[in-house]
Amino acid sequence: MDSVSIIAVASIITAGFSTSIGCMFPAMGEGKSVSTALTSIAQQPDAAPTITRTLFVGLAMIESTAIYCFVVSMILIFANPFWNFIIAK
Amino acid sequence: MDSVSIIAVASIITAGFSTSIGCMFPAMGEGKSVSTALTSIAQQPDAAPTITRTLFVGLAMIESTAIYCFVVSMILIFANPFWNFIIAK
Amino acid sequence: MDSVSIIAVASIITAGFSTSIGCMFPAMGEGKSVSTALTSIAQQPDAAPTITRTLFVGLAMIESTAIYCFVVSMILIFANPFWNFIIAK
Amino acid sequence: MDSVSIIAVASIITAGFSTSIGCMFPAMGEGKSVSTALTSIAQQPDAAPTITRTLFVGLAMIESTAIYCFVVSMILIFANPFWNFIIAK
Amino acid sequence: MDSVSIIAVASIITAGFSTSIGCMFPAMGEGKSVSTALTSIAQQPDAAPTITRTLFVGLAMIESTAIYCFVVSMILIFANPFWNFIIAK
Amino acid sequence: MDSVSIIAVASIITAGFSTSIGCMFPAMGEGKSVSTALTSIAQQPDAAPTITRTLFVGLAMIESTAIYCFVVSMILIFANPFWNFIIAK
Amino acid sequence: MDSVSIIAVASIITAGFSTSIGCMFPAMGEGKSVSTALTSIAQQPDAAPTITRTLFVGLAMIESTAIYCFVVSMILIFANPFWNFIIAK
Amino acid sequence: MDSVSIIAVASIITAGFSTSIGCMFPAMGEGKSVSTALTSIAQQPDAAPTITRTLFVGLAMIESTAIYCFVVSMILIFANPFWNFIIAK
Amino acid sequence: MDSVSIIAVASIITAGFSTSIGCMFPAMGEGKSVSTALTSIAQQPDAAPTITRTLFVGLAMIESTAIYCFVVSMILIFANPFWNFIIAK
Amino acid sequence: MDSVSIIAVASIITAGFSTSIGCMFPAMGEGKSVSTALTSIAQQPDAAPTITRTLFVGLAMIESTAIYCFVVSMILIFANPFWNFIIAK
Amino acid sequence: MDSVSIIAVASIITAGFSTSIGCMFPAMGEGKSVSTALTSIAQQPDAAPTITRTLFVGLAMIESTAIYCFVVSMILIFANPFWNFIIAK
Amino acid sequence: MDSVSIIAVASIITAGFSTSIGCMFPAMGEGKSVSTALTSIAQQPDAAPTITRTLFVGLAMIESTAIYCFVVSMILIFANPFWNFIIAK
Amino acid sequence: MDSVSIIAVASIITAGFSTSIGCMFPAMGEGKSVSTALTSIAQQPDAAPTITRTLFVGLAMIESTAIYCFVVSMILIFANPFWNFIIAK
Amino acid sequence: MDSVSIIAVASIITAGFSTSIGCMFPAMGEGKSVSTALTSIAQQPDAAPTITRTLFVGLAMIESTAIYCFVVSMILIFANPFWNFIIAK
Repeated sequence: MDSVSIIAVASIITAGFSTSIGCMFPAMGEGKSVSTALTSIAQQPDAAPTITRTLFVGLAMIESTAIYCFVVSMILIFANPFWNFIIAK
Repeated sequence: MDSVSIIAVASIITAGFSTSIGCMFPAMGEGKSVSTALTSIAQQPDAAPTITRTLFVGLAMIESTAIYCFVVSMILIFANPFWNFIIAK
Repeated sequence: MDSVSIIAVASIITAGFSTSIGCMFPAMGEGKSVSTALTSIAQQPDAAPTITRTLFVGLAMIESTAIYCFVVSMILIFANPFWNFIIAK
Repeated sequence: MDSVSIIAVASIITAGFSTSIGCMFPAMGEGKSVSTALTSIAQQPDAAPTITRTLFVGLAMIESTAIYCFVVSMILIFANPFWNFIIAK
Repeated sequence: MDSVSIIAVASIITAGFSTSIGCMFPAMGEGKSVSTALTSIAQQPDAAPTITRTLFVGLAMIESTAIYCFVVSMILIFANPFWNFIIAK
Repeated sequence: MDSVSIIAVASIITAGFSTSIGCMFPAMGEGKSVSTALTSIAQQPDAAPTITRTLFVGLAMIESTAIYCFVVSMILIFANPFWNFIIAK
Repeated sequence: MDSVSIIAVASIITAGFSTSIGCMFPAMGEGKSVSTALTSIAQQPDAAPTITRTLFVGLAMIESTAIYCFVVSMILIFANPFWNFIIAK
Repeated sequence: MDSVSIIAVASIITAGFSTSIGCMFPAMGEGKSVSTALTSIAQQPDAAPTITRTLFVGLAMIESTAIYCFVVSMILIFANPFWNFIIAK
Repeated sequence: MDSVSIIAVASIITAGFSTSIGCMFPAMGEGKSVSTALTSIAQQPDAAPTITRTLFVGLAMIESTAIYCFVVSMILIFANPFWNFIIAK
Repeated sequence: MDSVSIIAVASIITAGFSTSIGCMFPAMGEGKSVSTALTSIAQQPDAAPTITRTLFVGLAMIESTAIYCFVVSMILIFANPFWNFIIAK
Repeated sequence: MDSVSIIAVASIITAGFSTSIGCMFPAMGEGKSVSTALTSIAQQPDAAPTITRTLFVGLAMIESTAIYCFVVSMILIFANPFWNFIIAK
Repeated sequence: MDSVSIIAVASIITAGFSTSIGCMFPAMGEGKSVSTALTSIAQQPDAAPTITRTLFVGLAMIESTAIYCFVVSMILIFANPFWNFIIAK
Repeated sequence: MDSVSIIAVASIITAGFSTSIGCMFPAMGEGKSVSTALTSIAQQPDAAPTITRTLFVGLAMIESTAIYCFVVSMILIFANPFWNFIIAK
Repeated sequence: MDSVSIIAVASIITAGFSTSIGCMFPAMGEGKSVSTALTSIAQQPDAAPTITRTLFVGLAMIESTAIYCFVVSMILIFANPFWNFIIAK
């Protein structure tokens, strides 16, 4: 296996699993947040605007961790410095 | 095993497992959200529109993490830069 | 092992496990949603139409993640670009 | 190990485990749904028809994910395109 | 190891574990359903016929997933197309 | 390792673990059912005959999944078609 | 490693682990049943005979799954057809 | 590694782990039973003789599964037919 | 595999998994915090400003652990001293 | 590695892990029993003698499973028949 | 693989996983603390200053364990005595 | 690797992990016992002497399982019969 | 791989994972303690000084276990007797 | 790899992981004890001295299991009889 192949293989595998593993728990966390928001709105409909606003800020924070993984994944596929170095060589 | 084979194999395996692993927890999160939505509607039928609207926004956020994985998977199958580089060589 | 065999083997294994792993948690999520729907209907029979409608939308969302995996699996068996490339060669 | 053997082995193993893994969680999900249905009927006998109807729709959705796996498994045993290609060669 | 041996070994191992893994969770799901049925009958003896009928339909659905695995297992032992192909050769 | 040895070894290992893995969860499921039956009898002694009858039907269903595994195990030890083929050869 | 050794080793290992794995969950299930029986007797001392009788039937069912494993284990040690075939050869 | 060594090694390892794995869950089950017995006696001191008697029967059943493993372990160390065959040879 | 390749591969794999593993639990922790914040606001709307302020400080602390992992990951991709040493050599 | 070394190594490793694994769950079971005993004494101080007596019998039963493992471990270190056979040879 | 490469690889992998594994549970612990703080403030708004102060001390303690891992990670990347020794040689 | 080295390595590794694994669950069991003792004293201060006495007996029993592991560990380091045999040879 | 390299690699890997694994559970334990402290202060503001003092003693005890791991880690990096022996040789 | 290296490596790895694994659960157990102590003090401030005293005795017992592991670890690093034997040779 030459250098080009092995770096390509490592990038493909890491990019795929990095996104899929990194998206597991944010999905759970968001599910938990959304489900509590629904319970809270049902319990206190008057506070719906405050709850919704807080929910969106929280979802943004949680989604950000999934974004980090997606970004790393995209960097590895489309802007991989190690790959660029090797194919430039 | 030549370079073409090994990159193809890595892409196939990663594409398949990336989608299947990445779809596990969003499904749980959505199940949790939907089930809480149903409880909330049963408990406070008057707030149904607000609950439904919040639920759909939440589902969209959660589904987005599954979409990330599906997108990575499709990129690896149909627009894989490493594969293109190798078969172009 | 020649290139044709190894790509075939990788496709077979990935297709099988991708579907089976990807169908595990949607089944749990749907089971959770359905069971909560039944509790909610028993508790508030008047809200049954709203609950049923929300349930079906939710099930569709959850089922969609299982469908993604099934689609990837079918692509790998019947429309696999890597396999087509190899046997065309 | 020649190509025919290895593809046969991969198909056998994948077919078996794909069904058995893919049937685990649907069974749990159905068990959960059925058990909640029984609780709900005991709690609100008047809503039994609605509950039963919703239960059957839900079971069908959950069973569908197990069916996907069984279908993939059957395809791999009886209509495997890779196997057909190899033995035709 | 010749082709006959390896296919036999793969069939034996897959047949055994496919049944045993595939029977684990249906047993749990049925245990859950039966135990809820007993609770429900104790709580609402008048609804016993409805509960029993729903329980049997549910058990049949759950048992079906275990049957799938047993069927795949029997196919692999007694009607294995790959084995037939090899020993016919 | 000749063919006879390897098939014997695979049959021994599969037969043993298939029974032991396949008996784990039915035991749990039966334990759950029996324990709920006892609670239900203590709570509603008048419904004891109905509860006992339903319990026995349920235990039979659950035991059946353990029987499947034991049957596969016995087939592999005493009526193994692959073994018969090899030693006949 | 000759055939005799490897079959002996496989039989020893399988016999030991088959019993030990197969005895794990029945022990839990029996513990659960016994503990519920004690709670039920404490709660409804008048129903003690019915509870005890049902408990013993249940324990027998659960113990039976452990017995299956012990039987397979004993067969592998003292009446192993594969071993008999090899040493007869 | 000659036949004597490998059978000795397999017997040692299996004997040790078979007992240790097989003793794990009975200990949990007994702990559960004993702890429920104590709760029940504290709650209903008058039923102490019945509870104690049922507890001892239950502990005997649970202990029996641990005994099975210990017996298999002792057989493998002190009355191992495979070992006897080999050293007799 | 020469030194350049192996260091590149190790950096790629570590960078990807370090971010994805390190983002799992912060997402859960944030989900837990956000969901409790929503419950608290629904329960005590008057304390919303204090709750929101404490929530944001807490989210910042939790997010910081995810940031550590992302930083390590970026260092490994874009400012890796080992890589710089090797390619300078 | 000669026979003496390998049997010594297997005995050392098995003896150590057999005790440590076998002592895990008895410790949990005893912890559970003791903690319930304390709760029961606090709840019903008058039943303290009965509770203490039952607790000690139960602890003895649970400890016995840990003793089995310790005994197997000591046998393997100080009275190992396989070791004696080898060094006698 | 020469000494320089292997030490570099070990440092990269250890640095990455050490931070990501070491940041998992502190994030959970902080999430737990923050969420309890929010519940407590909602329940007893008057004690908010004391709660907040205790929370910050606690978060600092928990964060410290994550810092330990980050420090070890930074030492391995930027002040690694083993690396310095090797490249000085 | 000569006999002396391999027995030394096996003894070191087993001694270390045997203590660390064997100390895990006793620590949990003791934590559980102590925490229940504190709850019980807070609930029934008058029974403190009985509770404390029972607690100490229980802790001694639980600690004993950790001691077994520590003893095995010390035997393996300082009084290892296999090591003595080898270095005497 | 010469002796220097392998000892360096083992020290690097052990130092990193020892700290990260050893910091996981103390973080959870501290999170649990802090969160209970907050609940207790909210419930009984008058006992805040006693609670805070006990909390700090407890946190110190828990932190000490994390410190042990960090100390071992630092010893392995900066005062490793095996490394000193090798490089002195 | 000569004897000196391999024993050094085994000692380093065992020492590190033995401490880190052995410190996990004591930290949890102490966290549980401390958190219950805080709840108990908040619930019954008058019993604070008794609770604190019992807590400290309990913490000492739990800490002792962590100490065992730390001691084994220190012995392996600074007073390792196998290492002394080898370097004396």
